[in-house]
Amino acid sequence: MNLLKNLFSPLYIDPNMVNAGEMNGSGNLMDFLDEPFPDVGTYEDFHTIDWLREKSRDTDRHRKITSKSKESIWEFIKSLLDAWSGWVVMLLIGLLAGTLAGVIDLAVDWMTDLKEGVCLSAFWYSHEQCCWTSNETTFDDRDKCPQWQKWSELLVNQSEGASAYILNYFLYILWALCFAFLAVSLVRVFAPYACGSGIPEIKTILSGFIIRGYLGKWTLLIKTVTLVLVVSSGLSLGKEGPLVHVACCCGNFFSSLFSKYSKNEGKRREVLSAAAAAGVSVAFGAPIGGVLFSLEEVSYYFPLKTLWRSFFAALVAAFTLRSINPFGNSRLVLFYVEYHTPWYMAELFPFILLGVFGGLWGTLFIRCNIAWCRRRKTTRLGKYPVLEVIVITAITAIIAYPNPYTRRSTSELISELFNDCGALESSQLCDYINDPNMTRPVDDIPDRPAGPGVYTAMWQLALALVFKIVITIFTFGMKIPSGLFIPSMLAYHHHDWIIFRNWCRPGADCVTPGLYAMVGAAACLGGVTRMTVSLVVIMFELTGGLEYIVPLMAAAVTSKWVADAFGKEGIYEAHIHLNGYPFLDVKDEFTHRTLATDVMRPRRGEAPLSVLTQDSMTVEDVETLIKETDYNGFPVVVSKDSERLIGFAQRRELILAIKNARQRQDGVVSNSIVYFTEDPPELPPNSPHPLKLRRILNLSPFTVTDHTPMETVVDIFRKLGLRQCLVTRSGRLLGIITKKDVLRHMAQMANQDPESIMFN
Amino acid sequence: MNLLKNLFSPLYIDPNMVNAGEMNGSGNLMDFLDEPFPDVGTYEDFHTIDWLREKSRDTDRHRKITSKSKESIWEFIKSLLDAWSGWVVMLLIGLLAGTLAGVIDLAVDWMTDLKEGVCLSAFWYSHEQCCWTSNETTFDDRDKCPQWQKWSELLVNQSEGASAYILNYFLYILWALCFAFLAVSLVRVFAPYACGSGIPEIKTILSGFIIRGYLGKWTLLIKTVTLVLVVSSGLSLGKEGPLVHVACCCGNFFSSLFSKYSKNEGKRREVLSAAAAAGVSVAFGAPIGGVLFSLEEVSYYFPLKTLWRSFFAALVAAFTLRSINPFGNSRLVLFYVEYHTPWYMAELFPFILLGVFGGLWGTLFIRCNIAWCRRRKTTRLGKYPVLEVIVITAITAIIAYPNPYTRRSTSELISELFNDCGALESSQLCDYINDPNMTRPVDDIPDRPAGPGVYTAMWQLALALVFKIVITIFTFGMKIPSGLFIPSMLAYHHHDWIIFRNWCRPGADCVTPGLYAMVGAAACLGGVTRMTVSLVVIMFELTGGLEYIVPLMAAAVTSKWVADAFGKEGIYEAHIHLNGYPFLDVKDEFTHRTLATDVMRPRRGEAPLSVLTQDSMTVEDVETLIKETDYNGFPVVVSKDSERLIGFAQRRELILAIKNARQRQDGVVSNSIVYFTEDPPELPPNSPHPLKLRRILNLSPFTVTDHTPMETVVDIFRKLGLRQCLVTRSGRLLGIITKKDVLRHMAQMANQDPESIMFN
Repeated sequence: MNLLKNLFSPLYIDPNMVNAGEMNGSGNLMDFLDEPFPDVGTYEDFHTIDWLREKSRDTDRHRKITSKSKESIWEFIKSLLDAWSGWVVMLLIGLLAGTLAGVIDLAVDWMTDLKEGVCLSAFWYSHEQCCWTSNETTFDDRDKCPQWQKWSELLVNQSEGASAYILNYFLYILWALCFAFLAVSLVRVFAPYACGSGIPEIKTILSGFIIRGYLGKWTLLIKTVTLVLVVSSGLSLGKEGPLVHVACCCGNFFSSLFSKYSKNEGKRREVLSAAAAAGVSVAFGAPIGGVLFSLEEVSYYFPLKTLWRSFFAALVAAFTLRSINPFGNSRLVLFYVEYHTPWYMAELFPFILLGVFGGLWGTLFIRCNIAWCRRRKTTRLGKYPVLEVIVITAITAIIAYPNPYTRRSTSELISELFNDCGALESSQLCDYINDPNMTRPVDDIPDRPAGPGVYTAMWQLALALVFKIVITIFTFGMKIPSGLFIPSMLAYHHHDWIIFRNWCRPGADCVTPGLYAMVGAAACLGGVTRMTVSLVVIMFELTGGLEYIVPLMAAAVTSKWVADAFGKEGIYEAHIHLNGYPFLDVKDEFTHRTLATDVMRPRRGEAPLSVLTQDSMTVEDVETLIKETDYNGFPVVVSKDSERLIGFAQRRELILAIKNARQRQDGVVSNSIVYFTEDPPELPPNSPHPLKLRRILNLSPFTVTDHTPMETVVDIFRKLGLRQCLVTRSGRLLGIITKKDVLRHMAQMANQDPESIMFN
Repeated sequence: MNLLKNLFSPLYIDPNMVNAGEMNGSGNLMDFLDEPFPDVGTYEDFHTIDWLREKSRDTDRHRKITSKSKESIWEFIKSLLDAWSGWVVMLLIGLLAGTLAGVIDLAVDWMTDLKEGVCLSAFWYSHEQCCWTSNETTFDDRDKCPQWQKWSELLVNQSEGASAYILNYFLYILWALCFAFLAVSLVRVFAPYACGSGIPEIKTILSGFIIRGYLGKWTLLIKTVTLVLVVSSGLSLGKEGPLVHVACCCGNFFSSLFSKYSKNEGKRREVLSAAAAAGVSVAFGAPIGGVLFSLEEVSYYFPLKTLWRSFFAALVAAFTLRSINPFGNSRLVLFYVEYHTPWYMAELFPFILLGVFGGLWGTLFIRCNIAWCRRRKTTRLGKYPVLEVIVITAITAIIAYPNPYTRRSTSELISELFNDCGALESSQLCDYINDPNMTRPVDDIPDRPAGPGVYTAMWQLALALVFKIVITIFTFGMKIPSGLFIPSMLAYHHHDWIIFRNWCRPGADCVTPGLYAMVGAAACLGGVTRMTVSLVVIMFELTGGLEYIVPLMAAAVTSKWVADAFGKEGIYEAHIHLNGYPFLDVKDEFTHRTLATDVMRPRRGEAPLSVLTQDSMTVEDVETLIKETDYNGFPVVVSKDSERLIGFAQRRELILAIKNARQRQDGVVSNSIVYFTEDPPELPPNSPHPLKLRRILNLSPFTVTDHTPMETVVDIFRKLGLRQCLVTRSGRLLGIITKKDVLRHMAQMANQDPESIMFN
């Protein structure tokens, strides 16, 4: 109370106020169960947290530290450390996430190449590194050097010919199967939560759900290892979603080192939001895009403080990755594009067409993927996850090898597609015929007729596109780490090249194929994930093409509109619904004309609400009530007749308090009266010792009237992060609405099965 | 009700629920005052809106349109148009804001040059345009051409010499004074709200405050014209803040064309948030930065839908501006930097130092500016705004002319500072000695010794820096349109050049002076406005330097930390407090241990709360209560004894309803009983006709218990945008907390004068 008094200047002091504060403050501070018993304030697994309560607990902690900090220098330093711990955690997350991403990149590089051959000078070198260290390479022949040997060269000393091809093909498939089998086994044995992209679950966790172990140390370790294996095995998966999961595991690990975050589920989620930003930041080398992704796509509660910290974490992570330099170009940017040619207004039309295509593809992808995943969940298919992975890997490897565009790693391919053809480019895509009789300079590429290589490349790319689209549908959602970003980007649109080559008059440097690939990628990703701003920012950070923000935006917004016309859910929300997580989406608008009274329990005709009274129930009564019901908490009323609300007691804390009292407090027996009032009356000397439980009573339960429209109730649940809300009419308690009730009601109004919401 | 029934699938229908919905729905739909009377649902000037109520009104509107859309094709088209009107408004705002920004840029260019001379071939050409059209210019002498004549050349036919200099000097001052006088007069006569940067007021308006006319058509017109005049007059002001105001005026104008936005203050604010993004977008050519600025700095309620729309508006605006092409370089980017040299880790230290400097400068600036503005408000100084402007303009012009760095327009200067010296650069800053004996290539500039021009430039820049710092303090807040961004950027730090020139070993291309200017600018702006992410994004969009995001971030975060250590308020918040606007900042954390009961009215010993009863007061009683109090609304209770809360009636609507009923409903006299109940009892035949007011009763008033901690109450007010909240204890009404009470309590706890919060 001294603190409070100090805070009042003599000028504006209000004696009433201070007295009131003192009275109530002491009422809160010095309650009857003086020692807090263990586990109070924690939540059960698969339950929803109460954001308001977490916030107020954090403020209490903060106040305690502030008041202590005036006592001694040591306490002052401790309070400073506490204030800075947020930034320290961010720094650590950034460092670890950046390092892990670098290690993963290097390992994937090596293992992808291992499927094709090995470096003789040092087996741990990837193809590129191997030839880099060899001095015999010329500029024309960068990919070929004696140190790097294909398996056929090494084993049977043949580099060309049918038998060598078949041997390489076979070993390619074998390696892929090994990697995939190892990955799926590791996941099944050590960390079942390490499977999938992780983003749906992280969204749910950030919205205030508890899934113990989902972000644990084992998950971190296994996910990192299996991610490398899976991406190397050639499955049509990106490492971007899983990198977000990995970063969130880092966030969870470091937040467990600081009691400020480990003991408060709300604060912990602030750290996790920032970690998600760091994850995207390292996945794409896009720190700003990462922050926006966290804001737009994953986070639920994103205060401005988290914005700054996320940005810091994202920058540190990106910077660490740059220092490790896995791409060997000392840029933050993964697919740096060199071209800066302007685009023309008329090109907006094909960009919008790309957007339409992306939207349609997104819708199709989500529908097919969800149908497949539902099938997996409900039929016998789901019982053989290892077999499923092996089969898909085998199919992928068999089909992928003959086509050079699917054989190599996805990010290499994207990098080639995004790039414009230079005069020295050796790629098949740039095989334009150089006519020596032409007077135009050699770098004026669009004028030259396309060589046969371009047409071959077209076909191969078209086949690659179809194959990737189909196989990705089956791959996403398997029991291995899987991401969508890079595969989605692949689904770019190359047909426009041909259309536009005829449209352009010769001599005009009019179309940049790489730009179309970039815009197409954005459109497809937009259709699948329904991101807009963060997507555009990620794309232009990824490529460094600040000029192309308008085309990217046009495609992203069109894609979102088109996809939204067929269904509002992005792939992550669809997976959340598929799993029945209690996720109250901020994007959904609830527009039905229902009232709180329609949603609250008990419904008409049901048994009345289970309540506690403030001073007339015995310990046994309470225990019976707890045993007979499975509610998470009970409203406390003055008496069963008046039904005037006093507060709300959590089930978990009631159980703990009674157990604790029976063990440690003498005289508390089954007959003891339970008091939730401030001052229990004097009891006759022979009566059993009363049990005073005001300490665990939430004196400020959230109430709405029965006439409150459900849209307001939904809004309150969303914005304040409530777990439950009591319904009153003219001061009398009528019922209760939990988050599950709200979600079930919303599902019902949207004509979905309300029983799909499974958790509380 | 048919709609509701249709929405239930036969599978999940719950008869209880539908019945309940029907009953309550009809209770709401068909109330007793069937025709809505005019002005219901509007707010008075200088009052706060109720966000929840606005939102629920919008949902009602939406529902009505959806249900109508099934009736006919025409209604269906109308509903589609309504759904698209948001995007249409964004498009229009983008187009108008971009156009206005382009026109302003062109006009400022012309008028700034008009102070020095005139173009003979066409007087409406600026210096650059004039010489552009002239064919006689060579590359070396871009700035000199015969068509462009200084005033001395034109009037006395002298271009050199003391008398010509004095004549030019005199005319420069004269023009500046003319412009400034014209501007201040226009503002005073036509649109007093057009003064200042506008950002503090826009923040307040977006948080839910009504200031009629602040975003009106007159303000738009006058602000645009005077902005040109003021910036041309050479005052140390940027056009960026005012451009945000102009864009918001555009937003307000277009939203008044669509009833969806014009009739709903909440929806209107969504449009205004997006308009603010468009304003920053055109001010800096930074669409993403604009959106983040709106999110981080200005907006209060920023749902994801607004994020997308803001981005769209910002892009359209930037694109329109690019099409107008006022800078003649067909880029979105204002100060495009050409250099892409990497920076070194060791440089982080000076960057952080720049951040510290920026933070200190920000604190100093805010303190001095607020002190000066307070002085202006409280002393006689404030009575002579015209004189003040004239004096400051005269001082600025007199001091600015002799120094070439202050004479030219601020954006030209920044553009020069940000740029690296090329071999062909004619700027004095690049006057390095070209030693022909040296073997190094000519473009390896850092090795060459600095020529005398560089040292002259250093001195002039140092003087310019000091002058700009001092004069900006006095200028910001005058009664003319004024922005801070560009002047703050100016305060860059050039000393590092000298330090580092010695530190670098010759031959190493180690320091990029332009980068230091950029980082210094970011640090200063960060110190003044306390932005972080949006600032960094704006800076790198402004310059196109994606590589320098880490240095920029380091400086911005350091600057914010340093400045926050001296005081949490940025310049805009400081001005909001100075003006006493009711702004509940999302960034402030309330950590005091007070309860709702300490803040609510009535306090202990005060008269009891003025309440209405549901069925026992006459029209006269109500009128007396309205006359005797000035509260904005009254709780309605069952009876004065029981104090059980039924609902809440707004003062404004009570007055309107009673007035309306007395005029139009027969039999409603002073003796009529006012009923807030659903079914008034049958009255004896002779008794006066009852007045049924359930229609205007808010049946879901927001309540908290008296034990609710104030931090929770503050959170609820912030997140739900409440206007007032009722306080109950075990079902009985105890008191009321308004937004003003909350703000006053917060001011009191922060040791400030609670009376400084002036509005409700």
